[in-house]
Amino acid sequence: MRIAVDVMGGDNAPDAIITGCLDAIELLSSDDTLVLIGDQELIEEAIAERTLSDDDKQRLEIVGTTQSIGMGESPVQAIRDKPDSSLVVMGKMAGRKAGDKKVDVIISAGNTGACVAAAQMSLRRLPGVHRPGIAIILPTFHGPVVLCDVGANPEPRPSHLYQYAKMSAIYSREVLGVDNPRVALLSIGGEENKGNSLVKETNEIIKSDSSINYVGYCEGRSLFKGMADVVVCEGFTGNVVLKLSEGLSKGLFEIIAHEILEEDPGLAMQFEPVAKRVWKKHDYHEYGGAPLLGANSICMICHGSSQARTIKNAIRKAISYAEHHVNDAIVEAFANSEVVAEESA
Amino acid sequence: MRIAVDVMGGDNAPDAIITGCLDAIELLSSDDTLVLIGDQELIEEAIAERTLSDDDKQRLEIVGTTQSIGMGESPVQAIRDKPDSSLVVMGKMAGRKAGDKKVDVIISAGNTGACVAAAQMSLRRLPGVHRPGIAIILPTFHGPVVLCDVGANPEPRPSHLYQYAKMSAIYSREVLGVDNPRVALLSIGGEENKGNSLVKETNEIIKSDSSINYVGYCEGRSLFKGMADVVVCEGFTGNVVLKLSEGLSKGLFEIIAHEILEEDPGLAMQFEPVAKRVWKKHDYHEYGGAPLLGANSICMICHGSSQARTIKNAIRKAISYAEHHVNDAIVEAFANSEVVAEESA
Repeated sequence: MRIAVDVMGGDNAPDAIITGCLDAIELLSSDDTLVLIGDQELIEEAIAERTLSDDDKQRLEIVGTTQSIGMGESPVQAIRDKPDSSLVVMGKMAGRKAGDKKVDVIISAGNTGACVAAAQMSLRRLPGVHRPGIAIILPTFHGPVVLCDVGANPEPRPSHLYQYAKMSAIYSREVLGVDNPRVALLSIGGEENKGNSLVKETNEIIKSDSSINYVGYCEGRSLFKGMADVVVCEGFTGNVVLKLSEGLSKGLFEIIAHEILEEDPGLAMQFEPVAKRVWKKHDYHEYGGAPLLGANSICMICHGSSQARTIKNAIRKAISYAEHHVNDAIVEAFANSEVVAEESA
Repeated sequence: MRIAVDVMGGDNAPDAIITGCLDAIELLSSDDTLVLIGDQELIEEAIAERTLSDDDKQRLEIVGTTQSIGMGESPVQAIRDKPDSSLVVMGKMAGRKAGDKKVDVIISAGNTGACVAAAQMSLRRLPGVHRPGIAIILPTFHGPVVLCDVGANPEPRPSHLYQYAKMSAIYSREVLGVDNPRVALLSIGGEENKGNSLVKETNEIIKSDSSINYVGYCEGRSLFKGMADVVVCEGFTGNVVLKLSEGLSKGLFEIIAHEILEEDPGLAMQFEPVAKRVWKKHDYHEYGGAPLLGANSICMICHGSSQARTIKNAIRKAISYAEHHVNDAIVEAFANSEVVAEESA
């Protein structure tokens, strides 16, 4: 398998990204190659600084590029204006016209919108899929919840959300090992008459597909209560949920730590191991990347503030995704679907 | 002033609601009346159980009703089918046709959708306002943030969000005493090119109104970082944000408490006062009700799980809202607005 990483994307790029790649060599099989895409000189320097065996070095390949896309750039514009950016070059290497250098996996912690746009342009979609969606794993007190979409598609149609439900359930089953995952639709009340028209129409389509273990609406407060293994929502709200969860958890930990320190510095020392334990369970760095479900390749989108271990974990996740043949299962599910969700629905 | 409370609405109704009303008598001025609307017998019993002075009793009025609307009922249907429900009767008592029994304030912890529908039907809107929006106060580590809308209007137009920005800023200034409140629009990135079309169009309208101290987009993670005093969003996402914040904070506290107990029961005892202190700052019961901004009356919507003290605090909030003439300020602001936001925009 050939795994490509955009080493120029992310707040901590390129150093942390390159380090994460080199740390991940131990995860590779003998026939895997890790393709580092970005500033050739920087990558070569970083490799030279590490003590790598010849075997290790043989698993690495460098593709030098001269441009990179910033976190704040307009996705479509950036993709158009920067043909030699690490992201655009990586996308093309996974696309249909890639030739014998074709990669099977692409990973980036860069501008999410640009990742999605590059993937849409170069990879196209799996047969039967209307729009790809980003599926993150939300760590909750009752175990991981797959939340899809968190920003690939901020103005989806009901048919898109229906497809996210189907794809996310496959991802939950195959990669997380959840047997018959319970699927919910994020809404503003448990009753069917609540929500907006997008949610109500999606509800009807999902209900009509008996292959989905659908448990109905899930409210914001129930996301962390273990009522579902998969929660589907439109990308705008999903992105707000994701970032709000991060910001709120982080802020709460900070304020608790602050108050404990005020109360008694000795107490703070005792509290530290507890905080670390709880924090680790809610740390997105542990989960690595989020797949762009429905893209016609394996595309892992990582958090903008990814650290080296986030990238290593994303590579681990991508290998697991490939080994479980998630994309094949998605194609098969849509080919055999009893529900035909029209793009125009 | 005449303040009406729907004692049949909410998870803890009617007991907690009636108790909250009776506890709030001490907040009333000599010319205020508290109108309790609901099951007459239950209200009379509860009053008989309390030792109230004649003065106190004179400030109470009971309006007996025979129906109540459940939390899960379809709002519009329920309002139509239950003309003698506490909510519908209360709405009419605040409406234009109320006569000399007209109330100045209505408060309910019942079905939010039904509250909004009843208010829309009986109260109509303040001159110049297209759609009312619910403005909650979100307790954050950097002080209270007004978030509007959290569920009155799940499918708003850009002109509605613009009006929420204007009304919420007035509310923040008049009731919370924030000088020149900073207003932000909830989105999925800080840059103008991010977000959906609703957000981008609203952004343009708000920017064109120099009377708003607009600071641009606010991401989910920045909500708790003190970047704005007012955050505007559509009701669906706002409702998810509100409930997610509650659920996540509660869950995090529970898991931290659990882990501390596992670590050392002695430590748990020491941690308790810290937890209580932090929790109190984030406790929505302290904030009472959320005004339905733009309704042509003072309408306070309370949390479904309101306790007696939530209701007492909501009555306190309603009195403060009236004393600060928030509705007059809203009417004046729209009358003098340099921006004419068309309903069809």
